[in-house]
Amino acid sequence: MTEPVRVGVVGMGTVGSGVVRLLVESADHIERHAGRRIVVERAVVKDVAKARSVPVPGGKISSDIRDISRDPSISVAALLVGGLEPARSMMIELLENGKDVVTANKALLAEHGPELFELARKHGRSIAFEAAVAGGIPIVAAIGECLAANRIESIRGILNGTSNFILTRMEEDGANYADVLKLAQQKGFAEADPSMDVDGTDATQKLAILAHLAFGVWVPWAEIPRTGIEGLDLDLLNYAGELGYRIRLVAVASRSDGKLAMRVAPALVKIGTPLAETRGAYNAVSIVGDAVGRMFFHGLGAGQMPTASAVVADIIDTVVGRAAITFRTTGLLAADSPAAKLADVDSHERHFLRINVSDRPGVLAKITGLLGDHGISIASVIQHAETASADAGVPLVIMTHACASSAVQKAVAAIDKSDVIRGKSVCLGVLDE
Amino acid sequence: MTEPVRVGVVGMGTVGSGVVRLLVESADHIERHAGRRIVVERAVVKDVAKARSVPVPGGKISSDIRDISRDPSISVAALLVGGLEPARSMMIELLENGKDVVTANKALLAEHGPELFELARKHGRSIAFEAAVAGGIPIVAAIGECLAANRIESIRGILNGTSNFILTRMEEDGANYADVLKLAQQKGFAEADPSMDVDGTDATQKLAILAHLAFGVWVPWAEIPRTGIEGLDLDLLNYAGELGYRIRLVAVASRSDGKLAMRVAPALVKIGTPLAETRGAYNAVSIVGDAVGRMFFHGLGAGQMPTASAVVADIIDTVVGRAAITFRTTGLLAADSPAAKLADVDSHERHFLRINVSDRPGVLAKITGLLGDHGISIASVIQHAETASADAGVPLVIMTHACASSAVQKAVAAIDKSDVIRGKSVCLGVLDE
Repeated sequence: MTEPVRVGVVGMGTVGSGVVRLLVESADHIERHAGRRIVVERAVVKDVAKARSVPVPGGKISSDIRDISRDPSISVAALLVGGLEPARSMMIELLENGKDVVTANKALLAEHGPELFELARKHGRSIAFEAAVAGGIPIVAAIGECLAANRIESIRGILNGTSNFILTRMEEDGANYADVLKLAQQKGFAEADPSMDVDGTDATQKLAILAHLAFGVWVPWAEIPRTGIEGLDLDLLNYAGELGYRIRLVAVASRSDGKLAMRVAPALVKIGTPLAETRGAYNAVSIVGDAVGRMFFHGLGAGQMPTASAVVADIIDTVVGRAAITFRTTGLLAADSPAAKLADVDSHERHFLRINVSDRPGVLAKITGLLGDHGISIASVIQHAETASADAGVPLVIMTHACASSAVQKAVAAIDKSDVIRGKSVCLGVLDE
Repeated sequence: MTEPVRVGVVGMGTVGSGVVRLLVESADHIERHAGRRIVVERAVVKDVAKARSVPVPGGKISSDIRDISRDPSISVAALLVGGLEPARSMMIELLENGKDVVTANKALLAEHGPELFELARKHGRSIAFEAAVAGGIPIVAAIGECLAANRIESIRGILNGTSNFILTRMEEDGANYADVLKLAQQKGFAEADPSMDVDGTDATQKLAILAHLAFGVWVPWAEIPRTGIEGLDLDLLNYAGELGYRIRLVAVASRSDGKLAMRVAPALVKIGTPLAETRGAYNAVSIVGDAVGRMFFHGLGAGQMPTASAVVADIIDTVVGRAAITFRTTGLLAADSPAAKLADVDSHERHFLRINVSDRPGVLAKITGLLGDHGISIASVIQHAETASADAGVPLVIMTHACASSAVQKAVAAIDKSDVIRGKSVCLGVLDE
């Protein structure tokens, strides 16, 4: 009989515990798919004394990464700690000691990907990272392997479950941002410090990884234009609803004429389209390939078992040798990957504006005049008499016809300087299909 | 420099031409993903004299399968002819002469899968077949590799593009079945003989393949209960629409308590749910795994380039060695796969009935009484006065509450025997989520 493969699990938080649970409870099923038994040999954690709902088989749990990296019986390590340090040092220690690594840490890859992948290559090891993007959705395999014959034209996705949960609850319950955020934290859908989720950082890091897989170029994530959902309020969602739209935090990467445009920002998505129907903690990715056309994937983007499902699929891929092949042949994240030239994002699309104006005659004429001066024509206007308030002004909601976002930004800047304005305007892009 | 991999293409119909085109036009891109150059060495076709829109590189085209199978320079063959013979003999000839095979022929696999896969195993070759199910959607890889850590609980899909195109055009254009079928044939969306598409055979064969991947058992496709779309008419679609539903040809496989239930039949799907929003030639698959939860995939299920995209992805997988690993480790379609015990499909769900009754007093009481006798309670009834006609009777449309399909079938049999009936009743299942 073939010897079992021994796996070391680094980090026993939500995902790590799920991975151990899945490897133990579905051991027979997994053995059939891997052709070999896969066992958890040991876990390494920060705090050994902490009570654990999922026991480590044999009770082998300790706090020194070298208990895994220097154990010759362990061939695969699942690195399931978040953040940059000590995750980066641990990954280096594991690779230098000959372990293949599976990880769900998107921040680590977005920040140090080229360095770590180069190191893995040097040591003849592989790094698998399906779980780092969109949890249970097999989007890394889809782009890297299944759509390999395609030149990818665009990727569009909802990649952060926390912010999607918040937007969905706001729109469905008519609740405020702050109240829903508190609820999400109580329910465990949001971290104690949710800033990386709601400010778009998490989605941007995932987009950088997907763009590398799809376009073969390495984009430092911090260079990608990024807006979070913190500036949104319930009124904005309600106005979008009146116009037949929902608001989602959408990550976009598209290539045309050799130029790559990327952004993460809240956008209006038409009710009935797949992104608008992506609710709660679900993620969704839409990809257009030159041969395959438009593909759409939808599934749970986070959570213990969906993420564990992706980690264990990567462990199986590593054990059977597929991960090594993919890593070797595709040359992904190589140090010599061309750096991307991000194009100025001047998308040509409809825009949604909310402008707070003082409630006096001639204001609408002034605003529409300023828009017209910048070549922007208006598709529809909403102004509700009852929403007027002496202090805050009257919200004026405008849907434009398709126009360059640079023109809209200039027009809004001009509007915000005019004397009829009460408060800063909001401008969101509109994705009609 | 590494020698290029030489591929033989068998069949230059729609898909074969697309594969040659993709391998030629995207050669540089594909080389980056495969780590080696992949070239089309030769095509084998039935009629060499036929004019071709896509030329074979070097003009090497002939009609004898042995020109590929006996050419030692060719290592991979793409078998892109439909039907059972000569496809089966060709596959055997290719495998016995040491070629790895990539195919899109679902009928061949559904009918002769175990025999052919056993033969491939014996000769140390692989068969890859992503393109056989749902065209561009990477559902074979998703189930076999990406969701390998999951015990699959259910699969539900729209797997036949032709019948979905017909149903979508009927509902959107208010057109009759026969007229839309003719349009589909003119546009090339339906074969000259569309019977395998519209009678559910094609979807059933694909479901048998997916069920084998998901559940590890081999179900002879002809044993799966199957109803096509030929019996549907525009009135039925309109009544479903009045109730908030669309009608789709849905393939279902689900496992509970160790029993497997499978069927292919038209069903009502709620407007707004992913299957209802799957239009035209698109396919969709929804899978529930015990760890990953519900995943949903949507993409073009047929057509030249989407199918070619899947074939070329399989060629790349074969060239780099992933296909061989998958084939070897998973033991799929092995001759000793347990035969499936199909459970009697007695799904507990809502049902949609159309009953043509004579237009006289007491009829509704009689029908509802017969339903009540079988323990079936009614959620809503539609009866339009203006639809009455002396000959055909009055259509009575009933939506039941959830009940066992066996009870509904017995009730409908009793109703169809009663003296108030004009014509045969229609009974469809309702999928509410």
